Amino acid sequence: MSYFKHHVFFCCNQREPGETCCNALGASEMQAYAKDRIGQLKMKGQGKVRINKAGCLDRCDEGPVMVVYPEAVWYTYVDKEDVEEIIQEHLIGGKIVERLKI
Amino acid sequence: MSYFKHHVFFCCNQREPGETCCNALGASEMQAYAKDRIGQLKMKGQGKVRINKAGCLDRCDEGPVMVVYPEAVWYTYVDKEDVEEIIQEHLIGGKIVERLKI
Repeated sequence: MSYFKHHVFFCCNQREPGETCCNALGASEMQAYAKDRIGQLKMKGQGKVRINKAGCLDRCDEGPVMVVYPEAVWYTYVDKEDVEEIIQEHLIGGKIVERLKI
Repeated sequence: MSYFKHHVFFCCNQREPGETCCNALGASEMQAYAKDRIGQLKMKGQGKVRINKAGCLDRCDEGPVMVVYPEAVWYTYVDKEDVEEIIQEHLIGGKIVERLKI
């Protein structure tokens, strides 16, 4: 069994100004939002959920991106509403959010 | 199927001097070593291997730690020999390195 039920990594890579990167599209802010929400919802910890920052996940053209393991589901997102939908539907409900999946 | 066959995250969290953290135990250096080796071995890319840095993976007392997804296998390591063994046995050979598993 996986140590975390859902282990989420947000690509928070920052490139030079003008270059495509997830962080220029709000990744760190969205990661912080997700982390805070998981805390508020008491979903944090072993057997539950972990929200992490990661370096470049190498899917820059599809960014901003995040991946949920061990199920290996990748998402893109635009704003907090998208991140909240992933939290509610996937991390709580166990249902993949098809419209944001990449 | 997982976008990366093996997606490896090294905890590279750095805490204040004196506090336990993976980075004080050589995590960034070992992540760089693994990344270089995967490049040399032509194992980098979609369908193959990705080596990433991550923030705190919340297993500080067992650190330094890394996790391999989607199989959700966690390892600790001491030096490059340990990291090389994980590369050869697990990432190339598909066999879990039981002596380093946590």
